[in-house]
Amino acid sequence: MTIAHEELVSFAREILVRLRVPEAKADLVARSLVASNLRGVDSHGLQLLPYYVEQILLENIRAGADGKVISESGGCVLFDGEQAFGQHVAAQCCDHAARLAGVHGLGMVVARESNHYGAAAFWSQRIADAGYLGLTACNASALVAPWQGKEARFGTNPISLALPGPELWLLDMATTTVALNKVLNASLSGKETIPAGWAMDAEGVPTTDTATALKGLLMPLGGYKGSGLAMMVEILCAVLSGGAMSTELGGVYNRTKPMRTSQMFLAIDVKRFLPLDEFVERMRWLVEKVKSSAPAYGFDEVMVAGDPEWRAREKRLAEGIPLSEGAWKNLCETAARLNVPLPPPAS
Amino acid sequence: MTIAHEELVSFAREILVRLRVPEAKADLVARSLVASNLRGVDSHGLQLLPYYVEQILLENIRAGADGKVISESGGCVLFDGEQAFGQHVAAQCCDHAARLAGVHGLGMVVARESNHYGAAAFWSQRIADAGYLGLTACNASALVAPWQGKEARFGTNPISLALPGPELWLLDMATTTVALNKVLNASLSGKETIPAGWAMDAEGVPTTDTATALKGLLMPLGGYKGSGLAMMVEILCAVLSGGAMSTELGGVYNRTKPMRTSQMFLAIDVKRFLPLDEFVERMRWLVEKVKSSAPAYGFDEVMVAGDPEWRAREKRLAEGIPLSEGAWKNLCETAARLNVPLPPPAS
Repeated sequence: MTIAHEELVSFAREILVRLRVPEAKADLVARSLVASNLRGVDSHGLQLLPYYVEQILLENIRAGADGKVISESGGCVLFDGEQAFGQHVAAQCCDHAARLAGVHGLGMVVARESNHYGAAAFWSQRIADAGYLGLTACNASALVAPWQGKEARFGTNPISLALPGPELWLLDMATTTVALNKVLNASLSGKETIPAGWAMDAEGVPTTDTATALKGLLMPLGGYKGSGLAMMVEILCAVLSGGAMSTELGGVYNRTKPMRTSQMFLAIDVKRFLPLDEFVERMRWLVEKVKSSAPAYGFDEVMVAGDPEWRAREKRLAEGIPLSEGAWKNLCETAARLNVPLPPPAS
Repeated sequence: MTIAHEELVSFAREILVRLRVPEAKADLVARSLVASNLRGVDSHGLQLLPYYVEQILLENIRAGADGKVISESGGCVLFDGEQAFGQHVAAQCCDHAARLAGVHGLGMVVARESNHYGAAAFWSQRIADAGYLGLTACNASALVAPWQGKEARFGTNPISLALPGPELWLLDMATTTVALNKVLNASLSGKETIPAGWAMDAEGVPTTDTATALKGLLMPLGGYKGSGLAMMVEILCAVLSGGAMSTELGGVYNRTKPMRTSQMFLAIDVKRFLPLDEFVERMRWLVEKVKSSAPAYGFDEVMVAGDPEWRAREKRLAEGIPLSEGAWKNLCETAARLNVPLPPPAS
């Protein structure tokens, strides 16, 4: 099933509105999810909506909550998400970070008691759109064993950095080899195997079997370094926020408790270091320099972070967003339950 | 050859002083290098001194230069290293970052035209010792191909994060699978092979042969993610600083041009978010939680970043620092050339 992205936004918004989510919040959540699909990152796209609906009904997401600033001191804000939509929390935090960077050159906002905020890139880009270098990270449900361990202690704990100015480079990466949603998407797409290095079984033995992986754990990126990066994210988000850490978190797929994720937003005013157009000029030079490397054996070209996603967006803006059979089935069930009409297929 | 660490500090300092390096600078450089040996990170230890000596004689390191602040705005400082010792630049930048964090809650200093600063951890720890969360990163000689490429575009571009308070966790990692110096150390130790995944040959084909690796390129950590992290470091250090980027850099092993590395120092005042003792308490809980994971098959325990190094330090403080045959030979040659007496072996 392939559907135009604006139709999907309306559809997702309508589902949320039927649950009495205020229109503006519903729109923000819908747009953040569909933006991921547009970028080809289906793992963080609309396939999540049925799980969001569950969490709203369970009141693990408190659709009416807004969150509030706990303290502001210098360039630092501490925010209580009050179990509101992660997107609603993140939007406010990004705006505070940008405001503080305008005053101090740097702004850092740390939120606790938040919820899933979609793809991290959506938020680093929001800071970048305000004219600042935007960095965001969050902790997540413990699904990853630490290096040398076999019990889950870390989440996928992503990091994203976005640049002010034109679209030249955009990083958004889990500190695991892959995000959990990639394993789930393999399953929804009926793929029986996943690449080596993605996951281990419950005993800590690496596996390529999708079903076994879903019952096991994700593997940290590059062994002890991935563990170190995941811990760095845990510290910058959850230790600083005073929020839930490691196994204390729930998760978007966990019905038993609120997610309680912590998120960090850092805005840097590049103009304190050099003029913005010089920054862009230097970035352009650097990206071209990296791309000028001859491709390694087996590759046609060198790409940089962001390139695959911008290509996907161009294609999907034109042709619509393809949804996997599993994701579409879940969305249809959710729509039927809430009596929301299905969006038309892309022409 | 095993030598007590204080003897090695005196020896290294004396070598630098013979080159008319002012005593205080010589002491800082000597201590920073030996601190790496103490932590078991020999790749960033005294084996580097003969190369530093070369660079001083070539005037790629300007032993008399001090560097200067170019601009200060809010919590942001831009620093010109003027090709001074990287350690001398880094010490000043750390102190500015800590000062700014005291005022604004956050302080970020970016230096250009610096030199090799030893192990990154020495500087994140300096910020931590001042009472702040300390993050540092630097760009380095292009020795790493970007993901899907076979020509060097990135350095090992390390990141280090250190925590104020007791020693619970300390991250210092190259964004390549390993640091170049680990390959060099394998060579100095006469090891003919290195583990898979460390390096590729000149055509971009992975190799485990030490000699081939030395002529080839390091591999990014975890493919496109390592490339992304290396680029993130390049942006935060060199794009912002206005300094040399990618292939423009020299390097500590490169005699043909100044190193021109850029370095970034970020200090975060955790007290703006929560009391310091609560921060330490939460860190302790988190570290214990991670270590409480049952070990995976083949391992006895779960360690966190910093543990192996603190164990090495305890041992080496007691027993002295073992130097590889190759490193010792180079040091003896340098000492002979400068007429500096060799340090006595540890008793």
